[in-house]
Amino acid sequence: MKTRQIPYKIYLSEEEMPRYWYNVKAHMKVQHEPFLNPATGKPCTKADLQPVFCDECIDQELNTSDEQIEIPEGIRSFYRTFRPSPVVRAYFLEEQLGTPAEIYYKFEGSNTSGSHKLNSAAAQAYYAKKQGLKSLTTETGAGQWGTALAMASAFYGLNLDVYMVKVSSEQKPYRKEVIRTYGANVIPSPSDTTAAGRKILKEFPGTGGSLGCAISEAVEKATSTPSCRYVLGSVLDHVLLHQSVIGLESKTALDKYGITPDVIIGCCGGGSNFGGLIAPFMGEKLQGKNDIEFIGVEPASCPSLTRGKYAYDFCDSAKTTPLAKMYTLGCGFMPSASHAGGLRYHGMSPIISRLYHDGYIRAVAVEQSKVFDAAIKFAKCEGILPAPESAHAIRVAVDEALKCKETGKKKKILFGLTGTGYFDLSAYKKYNDGEMSDSIPTDEDLAKGFASIPVIKA
Amino acid sequence: MKTRQIPYKIYLSEEEMPRYWYNVKAHMKVQHEPFLNPATGKPCTKADLQPVFCDECIDQELNTSDEQIEIPEGIRSFYRTFRPSPVVRAYFLEEQLGTPAEIYYKFEGSNTSGSHKLNSAAAQAYYAKKQGLKSLTTETGAGQWGTALAMASAFYGLNLDVYMVKVSSEQKPYRKEVIRTYGANVIPSPSDTTAAGRKILKEFPGTGGSLGCAISEAVEKATSTPSCRYVLGSVLDHVLLHQSVIGLESKTALDKYGITPDVIIGCCGGGSNFGGLIAPFMGEKLQGKNDIEFIGVEPASCPSLTRGKYAYDFCDSAKTTPLAKMYTLGCGFMPSASHAGGLRYHGMSPIISRLYHDGYIRAVAVEQSKVFDAAIKFAKCEGILPAPESAHAIRVAVDEALKCKETGKKKKILFGLTGTGYFDLSAYKKYNDGEMSDSIPTDEDLAKGFASIPVIKA
Repeated sequence: MKTRQIPYKIYLSEEEMPRYWYNVKAHMKVQHEPFLNPATGKPCTKADLQPVFCDECIDQELNTSDEQIEIPEGIRSFYRTFRPSPVVRAYFLEEQLGTPAEIYYKFEGSNTSGSHKLNSAAAQAYYAKKQGLKSLTTETGAGQWGTALAMASAFYGLNLDVYMVKVSSEQKPYRKEVIRTYGANVIPSPSDTTAAGRKILKEFPGTGGSLGCAISEAVEKATSTPSCRYVLGSVLDHVLLHQSVIGLESKTALDKYGITPDVIIGCCGGGSNFGGLIAPFMGEKLQGKNDIEFIGVEPASCPSLTRGKYAYDFCDSAKTTPLAKMYTLGCGFMPSASHAGGLRYHGMSPIISRLYHDGYIRAVAVEQSKVFDAAIKFAKCEGILPAPESAHAIRVAVDEALKCKETGKKKKILFGLTGTGYFDLSAYKKYNDGEMSDSIPTDEDLAKGFASIPVIKA
Repeated sequence: MKTRQIPYKIYLSEEEMPRYWYNVKAHMKVQHEPFLNPATGKPCTKADLQPVFCDECIDQELNTSDEQIEIPEGIRSFYRTFRPSPVVRAYFLEEQLGTPAEIYYKFEGSNTSGSHKLNSAAAQAYYAKKQGLKSLTTETGAGQWGTALAMASAFYGLNLDVYMVKVSSEQKPYRKEVIRTYGANVIPSPSDTTAAGRKILKEFPGTGGSLGCAISEAVEKATSTPSCRYVLGSVLDHVLLHQSVIGLESKTALDKYGITPDVIIGCCGGGSNFGGLIAPFMGEKLQGKNDIEFIGVEPASCPSLTRGKYAYDFCDSAKTTPLAKMYTLGCGFMPSASHAGGLRYHGMSPIISRLYHDGYIRAVAVEQSKVFDAAIKFAKCEGILPAPESAHAIRVAVDEALKCKETGKKKKILFGLTGTGYFDLSAYKKYNDGEMSDSIPTDEDLAKGFASIPVIKA
């Protein structure tokens, strides 16, 4: 093993934990276009959003001027139960690859939700409680977001209804059970608890549901219930803001050892992890203070950045949300089977989309069998069994390190290890049994998705 | 929340991590009786044990004189991937209980095996590799030990055959899959790969297997394969030695803040976690340097300390192992259904048994529904979903803290949180559905077990 001036894990002390989130929009020369109200075609106002979201989150969503936004003590207090998370120097992976590169990863998976999702769940539940609300609703597919929000709701004392895609609640009974254990109510969607659910049940009896339908039900429940709001786990600006705690901790940890990464890599589904990881580093880049390369990694089965269009589109497949200007495969795009449920999203965070459009971010799409190759290589030498989503970042970090082996460059690579794969073992089974396939959409598949993008008058 | 002079989590730096394990036997005035060879009735020699175990582990097993035994750099290096583990001040649990007590817990669950088992798996795999062996065998029931050994074997480059109780491999397919993902071979037991397995299959076709049978197969495979040894995850002295890293880290962390616990609590199955947690504190107590109360917690369904006999008995139900003097319910005792698979063991570590017999340890048996009450209370305020085994310690820590509420005493309570419950959600489901039962053996049940204890001539 190389001489270890840098410890295997860099932990921050409680005093070193961030007191402010980092709002990268304060340094963006060009802001992303505003959300549009689909009924009027006009930009959404705070009043448009208030029936759905908490007030404080809306203010954060619309804030383009303040670089620093304070993390209230009530949130920092809960953060201490699962943060700081370590920056790990992947000495054993480096050794196995025989690379001159230095590889670092920020590990967000050692909390019960198993991922970074808890960073924003904590904030959104806190603000709901502070606003005097009694309950929250949300949807969940793979279940990590539902688990995170159940944990946060239990901590702050809020009731929670989780609309879980019916087929997921049947295929992932244990995920459902974690959510129930934290006291939340899991409702397989479509359900008869909402008009939207009843309509779909009537039209398609026996359907397994969809994320789009679950969103519709959760929003309806929130807007029709007193003292209740809806919360979302990715895509939106305020979610990326909360996730900036990942990047801030990473930067403080690396700064302690005088390390500036040459490359930062993160997996990209809705963009919350990647946006949070890169936030403070990107802020500096936008000010000309560094020349870091940022790489967003998406699955080849759902390539919104690398093959999508930059257009106004609905955030959900049921076409109930405001319109966002983003890279999208079309709200009607159906990604083919993939084990990275958290990356199967047709769109992309408007912030990430804007930065990508303006050339600050590079995007790479990777095939899932190669992702699992890297995941297992990583697990065997670094110990952690990664989530399939996170393993997308591992794949590209390994590829970058292998390039360094060829060129002899000693690049410093930082990637985000967003979570663990403990609830994804059916995917690992497929891989272990040699039954994993890659499914890459054809141009015809994409064309069908693009046809679902609404036509907006300029 | 109370004034926080003590941080929520106390982490050690790499430099503060232990360089030596702590051998509590060096301070025991009375050693436990030696293992006996069942064929001869005479104490086991190193030569008796060498066909089964690694040489270095046997030396450690028989060492009663050295307080400090060095942890080789090759093990400390792997330890850095998942250690140090934090000592957490349970501020939120204290607040919810309204207790004047200070509650601390040492959390061993944030590695992929999900428990403390990796501490000894690492050491045993390292020594096997150092001895030039090619492969290891073991048995696993619930699967935590099998996972830990698969991780360690992958890290050190050893082949591993895990004999997994057939019914467990069917009921816990995901545990099996983690083990396979780390490259180990999982063999549902009984199998046709050993004479012991073939015999049982012939006598009981269609049987779901048992831990006793899996041990027999693993030992046979080890002793009949060149360059192969068998490894065990609990009970034995060298396993407790490796687990002393838990207690050593806890003591260093608490010493930094001038804290000496009044009570230390751990769950007790084979005794490896409890023995490791208390080791350095007990060593001081044996030297008259502290007056800490040590409480071992066992399930009411399998009460080896509180209702067992102190006698020589086989370590396995198949009666193939050396005889150990320990608290036992009889190697033929069948514990009734319980969700804490790791605590369903008829015997107890000879070290723990001796210390208990000599009055240095108190034991408490708790019912599983009350254990789950405490587990869920803990999860909701401290975030971590505990393993059912670990929750036994939570139950008694909560009870001690509630006593302090009555008496006004500000006791300092430390307990071991050995692992997470991510693979135990069928147990949580039972609890959430109101279907959990407590099953306490009757005196008649115990008498049947006691009848299986062999009669040893003095």
